[in-house]
Amino acid sequence: MSKPLLPHPDRFFQADKDTGNIARRLFEEVEKLPIISPHGHTDPSWFANDTPFEDATSLFLWPDHYVLRMLYSQGISFAQLGMAPKGGTAEPDRRKAWKLFAEHYYLFRGTPSRTWLDHAFSTVFDIDVRLEAETADHYYDVIKEKLAQSEFRPRALFKRFNIELLATTEGANDALLHHQKIKQDWDGRVITTFRPDGVVNPEIDGFAQNMAALAELTHENVASWKGYLSALASRRQYFREMGGATATDHGHPTPFTADLSAVECQALLDKALKGTISAAEAELFRGQMLTEMALMSCEDGMTMQIHPGSFRNHNPLLFAGYGADRGADIPLRVGYVEQLKPLLNKVGNRKDLTVILFTLDESNYARELAPLAGHYPCLTLGPAWWFHDSPEGMMRFRRNCTETAGFYNTAGFNDDTRAFLSIPARHDVARRMDCVYLAELVATKRLDEEEAGEVAVSLAYGLPKKAYKL
Amino acid sequence: MSKPLLPHPDRFFQADKDTGNIARRLFEEVEKLPIISPHGHTDPSWFANDTPFEDATSLFLWPDHYVLRMLYSQGISFAQLGMAPKGGTAEPDRRKAWKLFAEHYYLFRGTPSRTWLDHAFSTVFDIDVRLEAETADHYYDVIKEKLAQSEFRPRALFKRFNIELLATTEGANDALLHHQKIKQDWDGRVITTFRPDGVVNPEIDGFAQNMAALAELTHENVASWKGYLSALASRRQYFREMGGATATDHGHPTPFTADLSAVECQALLDKALKGTISAAEAELFRGQMLTEMALMSCEDGMTMQIHPGSFRNHNPLLFAGYGADRGADIPLRVGYVEQLKPLLNKVGNRKDLTVILFTLDESNYARELAPLAGHYPCLTLGPAWWFHDSPEGMMRFRRNCTETAGFYNTAGFNDDTRAFLSIPARHDVARRMDCVYLAELVATKRLDEEEAGEVAVSLAYGLPKKAYKL
Amino acid sequence: MSKPLLPHPDRFFQADKDTGNIARRLFEEVEKLPIISPHGHTDPSWFANDTPFEDATSLFLWPDHYVLRMLYSQGISFAQLGMAPKGGTAEPDRRKAWKLFAEHYYLFRGTPSRTWLDHAFSTVFDIDVRLEAETADHYYDVIKEKLAQSEFRPRALFKRFNIELLATTEGANDALLHHQKIKQDWDGRVITTFRPDGVVNPEIDGFAQNMAALAELTHENVASWKGYLSALASRRQYFREMGGATATDHGHPTPFTADLSAVECQALLDKALKGTISAAEAELFRGQMLTEMALMSCEDGMTMQIHPGSFRNHNPLLFAGYGADRGADIPLRVGYVEQLKPLLNKVGNRKDLTVILFTLDESNYARELAPLAGHYPCLTLGPAWWFHDSPEGMMRFRRNCTETAGFYNTAGFNDDTRAFLSIPARHDVARRMDCVYLAELVATKRLDEEEAGEVAVSLAYGLPKKAYKL
Repeated sequence: MSKPLLPHPDRFFQADKDTGNIARRLFEEVEKLPIISPHGHTDPSWFANDTPFEDATSLFLWPDHYVLRMLYSQGISFAQLGMAPKGGTAEPDRRKAWKLFAEHYYLFRGTPSRTWLDHAFSTVFDIDVRLEAETADHYYDVIKEKLAQSEFRPRALFKRFNIELLATTEGANDALLHHQKIKQDWDGRVITTFRPDGVVNPEIDGFAQNMAALAELTHENVASWKGYLSALASRRQYFREMGGATATDHGHPTPFTADLSAVECQALLDKALKGTISAAEAELFRGQMLTEMALMSCEDGMTMQIHPGSFRNHNPLLFAGYGADRGADIPLRVGYVEQLKPLLNKVGNRKDLTVILFTLDESNYARELAPLAGHYPCLTLGPAWWFHDSPEGMMRFRRNCTETAGFYNTAGFNDDTRAFLSIPARHDVARRMDCVYLAELVATKRLDEEEAGEVAVSLAYGLPKKAYKL
Repeated sequence: MSKPLLPHPDRFFQADKDTGNIARRLFEEVEKLPIISPHGHTDPSWFANDTPFEDATSLFLWPDHYVLRMLYSQGISFAQLGMAPKGGTAEPDRRKAWKLFAEHYYLFRGTPSRTWLDHAFSTVFDIDVRLEAETADHYYDVIKEKLAQSEFRPRALFKRFNIELLATTEGANDALLHHQKIKQDWDGRVITTFRPDGVVNPEIDGFAQNMAALAELTHENVASWKGYLSALASRRQYFREMGGATATDHGHPTPFTADLSAVECQALLDKALKGTISAAEAELFRGQMLTEMALMSCEDGMTMQIHPGSFRNHNPLLFAGYGADRGADIPLRVGYVEQLKPLLNKVGNRKDLTVILFTLDESNYARELAPLAGHYPCLTLGPAWWFHDSPEGMMRFRRNCTETAGFYNTAGFNDDTRAFLSIPARHDVARRMDCVYLAELVATKRLDEEEAGEVAVSLAYGLPKKAYKL
Repeated sequence: MSKPLLPHPDRFFQADKDTGNIARRLFEEVEKLPIISPHGHTDPSWFANDTPFEDATSLFLWPDHYVLRMLYSQGISFAQLGMAPKGGTAEPDRRKAWKLFAEHYYLFRGTPSRTWLDHAFSTVFDIDVRLEAETADHYYDVIKEKLAQSEFRPRALFKRFNIELLATTEGANDALLHHQKIKQDWDGRVITTFRPDGVVNPEIDGFAQNMAALAELTHENVASWKGYLSALASRRQYFREMGGATATDHGHPTPFTADLSAVECQALLDKALKGTISAAEAELFRGQMLTEMALMSCEDGMTMQIHPGSFRNHNPLLFAGYGADRGADIPLRVGYVEQLKPLLNKVGNRKDLTVILFTLDESNYARELAPLAGHYPCLTLGPAWWFHDSPEGMMRFRRNCTETAGFYNTAGFNDDTRAFLSIPARHDVARRMDCVYLAELVATKRLDEEEAGEVAVSLAYGLPKKAYKL
C-alpha cells in the first residue's frame, strides 16, 4: 500500500503551539510574495526556447548533483543510472533508472533534497503518494504525461512559480544569445550574472583559449595588464547591456585578496599566459583579480558575490568519467579576516558598493563574517549556501549571524540552483525557516511580532532586491 | 502612534510552559543577587568624581562600539553622528545625532544591543515607548532631565544597580588616583585590574615610552631582563595595594605562550627596546610574557585573564580618523592546545593559581577549552565574550562546554563593558539564559530542580567571587 | 535527608508534550533491541576469567578517565584518590577515596558521566538515593556486597545487559589468549579489533621492540618494506582467525594520508627502525600506513576505523606520575579534505570497503565529513565520539551531518568505552537522543513517524552490524 505524500501546511513550524502559531502568522505575510531569484544556475535556453522537459529521469535525476552524490555514496554507479560517461554513449532505459532511484529514495530521509523533491512532486505534478519502488511507474507516467502539456513548459512554470526575476550565470565570453531572445519575445524577467572565473583563474581548464577568445571579443590586448582590465570592463558592460546583469559572481578556492603594483600584476599575467605560473602565484593572481573586480564594481555599480571554499572535483576517477558538478565538490576550511583585508583596505568603506560574502565553512559565521559585515559598509552576508541551504543550515546561519550583523546586513535568500523545479520549494523552506527563527524571538519576548513581520518581508523580498540592485 | 516599550518579565524563558515555569522559578532565586562585575572597562573617574552624565547621545551613542559598528555598517558616518575625528573638532548637534540613531534603531532588531538599551531606557529612565524617529525627542528630553538629578549620578546608579563590586582595567603605569579617591570618600567597591599590554607587547603604539615610564615609576633597570621582571612585579604590587586589584588581564593577539632561557629573553628584550624586533620575535616575546605573568601570579596570587584572538583596528581609514575601539576589531581563528602548552607545563598543575581563558573563536569551546579546563587545575573558563555576550552566544557556550568542563570549571558571568548603564541589563540576560539552560536540563530530566537552583546561584554569584578571589 | 535517585523513564525526551510523545513511541521500538558494541576498550580478561569486580572505587573511580579528569581539574590529586604512581605503591583506603569522590559528585552536574554513573547505580545495583557525602558508605557497602554475588560477575552482566556482540581492541602483537579462552568455554560473543598503532607509528614508545616482536611472531623480515607489509597482513589474518576481528582501528594524531613509492617507503622504514626519523617523516610514514591499511582492507574485507585528532598525554607531570589515559588527552584542530585525498584517490570508489571516520573537531561535521561521506562509497561516519558522546554532542552530530550525509552513511552508535558498566547507559542515551532528533523531524513534518521508526531501528541495530560486517 502506498504512503500519502502531503506536504503539511505547517511544516517546519515549531511543535510548541504558541510559537508555531506565531510562525504561521508571520509566514502568511510572506508566503505569496513573488520570488526574487538573483543568484542561480538554471539554463537560459529553457526560457529562450521553451522546449518541454522530457521525463522524470532527465528532469530530476541526472542533473541534480545532490541526488547523484547520495546515490553514489551508497554504491550506485552513474552507469546504473543510465548516464553516459564523457565521450561515451548510453542508450539508457530511463524508466529503469527512475525505478532504481525510487528504490533508494529512503536514503534522502532527513535531507533537503527530499523536501525539495516532495514539494515539486506534490505541488507541480499533483502526485499524492510517496516515491518508492511500488510507485515509481506511477510517478514516471504522470510526470511524462504532464511535461508534454503546455502548462508544464518552462515559461509557463516560471509564471506559475510567481517568479518576478531570475538570474542565471554565464562565463565572461558568453554571447548571451538566450537572454537576448528572451527579452525579444517574452515578458519573463531572466537576467544574467557575470562570472569571469574562466578568465581570471589561471589554473582553470582552458584558460589560454578563454583569454584568446576574450581578446577577440573585445579587441583588447589581453597580454597587457591594462588591456586585460579593459577587456574585462568591456565584458561587464556587455553583460549589463545585453543580459541585464546587475551582479558578478566569483567562485574562487579561497577568499584571499591582494593589492599589487601594476608591475607585479603584469609579471603575473605574463606567467599566466605562458602557462608557467606556480600555484602560489596563481592564488596571488586570483586574489588581485578579486580586488580589481571590486574596483570595477565601484565604477559600474555591479554587486559582487564571493563564493569561496570548495575543493572542486575531489574525486579524480569520477571527474575523468563524468566531468564536473557530479557531487564530488567538498568544502574546505577558509578564513576571511586577513584574506579580505587588501580588498577592504581599498574599498571597504564604500557605501555605494555591495560585496556579498558566502561561505561553506560555518565556523566563520559568528567569528568572522558577522563581525565583518557588521562593520564594513560594503559588506553583506549571503544566505546559508549549498550544503547549508537546509533547515538546520539556515537556523545555524541566523543564530550565528543575527546577534552581530543584524538582519539588515544580510541579502535575504537566494537559491543558487540548477534545478528549476526546486526553486519554489527552496524559497518556501527559506521563508518558513526565517519565520521559525523570528517566531522564536517573538515567543521569547526578544522582538515584537509587528517588527518580526516587517523583518520577514524584508528577508523574503526587500533585502534581495536591495542587495542585487534590482 | 508610538509602540510600547515593556520588557516582558518572562523574556528569554522557554515558550514551552512547563520549561518556562522552571526557568522562572530558578530566576527568582538569582534575580536579586548583588552584581559582581570582576572584569570591565568603565571609567573610574565616573565614580571618583561623581559628575553627572550629560545626555543620551554622549551616554548611549558615542562611546558604544557595538552601536557605532552597526550604524557604520549601514553607511552612516561618524561625522553624521556628531563625532569629532582625531585632532579635529566638532560642534555637534547632539539631538540631531540622537534622532539619526533613533531612525535607525530598527537595525538592532535581534541583537543584544537592542536588549541592553531597551533595558536601560525602561528600568533606569522609566521610558515606556519604543525608540524610533517619532519618539527621539521624547527620549532625549527625558534622559537629559533625569541625568541632571542627583539619583542619576554614577555613585547613586552604582548603588541602585546593587553592585557589590566593580573592577575597572588600567594600564601598568597608571597611578590609580581615581581608585584612591574612591576608597577615601565612598563605600562603593571599585577595584582595578592590572593590564600590562602596553609594556609586554613590543608592537603596541608607544612601547618605548611606556617602558621608559615603567623604569621611572619603579626605579628598575627595565633594559635588563631581571630588572624588567622586577618592575612588573612592583607594579602588580602597586595595583594590589593602591587599587585593590585581584586580577591581571592580557589582550594578546593569540594564546601563544613560550618558555625561553634567560639569555633568549634578554636578547628579545634588547631588540624590543631598540625597535628592531621582528613580528615573529614579538609574538615570542608576548608568549614568554604570558608565562612570566603566570609565574608571578603563582607568587602574588593574582588571577590571570587571557583574552586572545582579536584583530584590532582592522579598518585603517577608520583608525586614522577616529582611533581605537570604534567597532572595527574582528575575531580571528586561534588555537589553545599547543599554544598554551609551555605555560601549562610550568604552572598547569598549580591548585593555587587561577587562569581564566576567554575566546572569540567558539570552535574551541568543545574541542579545546572545555577539555583543557576539565583537566588542568589552574584553568577556568571565562563566559561567552564580546560578540558572543548574547542569548545565542551564551547558549552555545553552555551547550558546548558544560558536558566536558561542568559548571564548576567556569567563572560565572562578567560583563566586560565600557557602558555603565548596560551592566544591570547584561547580568540580567546572563542570569536568565543560565536559567533557560538549566531549565532545559531539568525539563528533560538531566538535573534535579533543587540542584539546578544551586548551580544558578553559583553561576550568578559564587563562582565569580571564587575565580577572582574576592 | 538523602535525595532520590530515579532515572526518569522519559529522560531526554522533549518537554513539549506532542514531541515528547513521539520520542517515547519511537524509543519503545528500540529500547529492548540487543546491544551491538563494535568498538570499545573493555578488558577481555574480565570475560575470559569471569573474576568478580572488587568494589566501587576500583570499578567506578580509578579506571574512569572522565571521572579522574574532572576531579583533578578541581584540585583533587590522584594520591588523595588512593592511586599509586607509576613504579610506586599505595595502600589506599578505598572507602575513603570513594567518600572523597561522593563529596565532589556535584561537579558532574550536567555531564554525561553523571548520567552514565546514575544509570549504573540505579539499574545495576538498585540504589535509589543520590550519591553524596551522606550516602557514600551506603553506596560502598551495597556495591561491595552485590559484586560478590555471582549474578554481578562479568559474564552474567554481559547477558543481563543484552549484549549481542562486544568488540575489544588489542595491539598488533597481542596473542589473543583471552579471546581464545572465551570462545572455548562461553557463548558470549567477544571479538577483538586490530589496532596496529604500536607498529605503524615510529614515534610511539617502544616502537623498536614492537617491531622486533612483530618479526618474531610472523617470521617476516620487517626491515624490508615488503616483509613489513606481509607481517602486518599476517597479523590481520591472525586477528580474524583467532579473535574474530572484523575491523581495524587507527589512533593517529591526524587524518593525514600518503601515497609514496616503494623506494620512499623503504627509506622511511629504514629511518624509523634506526630511530633517526624526523617528526615530519614520521607523519609521512603514518600517513602511508593508513593507505596501506586501506589497501589491505580491500583484500581481507576488514572495516577500517580512523580516530584522529587527540593530543595524547598533554600534561607531562601527570604522565610521568601516572601514565596514559588519565584524562589529559586534549582534542586538536584537524582537517580531512586534503589529508584523506591520497587514500581516497586509491580506494575511495571501492564499494566493498568501509572506512569509518571519527572526529573530535566538530567543525568538520558539516564542512568536511558529511560531504565526504555523502559522496565516497567507501566512507561512513562514526558516531559522536569521546568528549562528544553526550546528549548535546549527539544532537550536534545529527544536526550537522544528517542533511548532507543522511542517516544511511552513518555507522550507528558505538560506545568506545573501557567502563563495562557504562555500556547499557551509553546505548540508552544514544537511542534516546536519536529518538529525540527523529521526533523533532516528525513533529515539524519533515519525516513521517513510520519512516522515523525504521530509521531508529537502523541506527540502534542495523547500521552498526552493516558497518562492521557482523
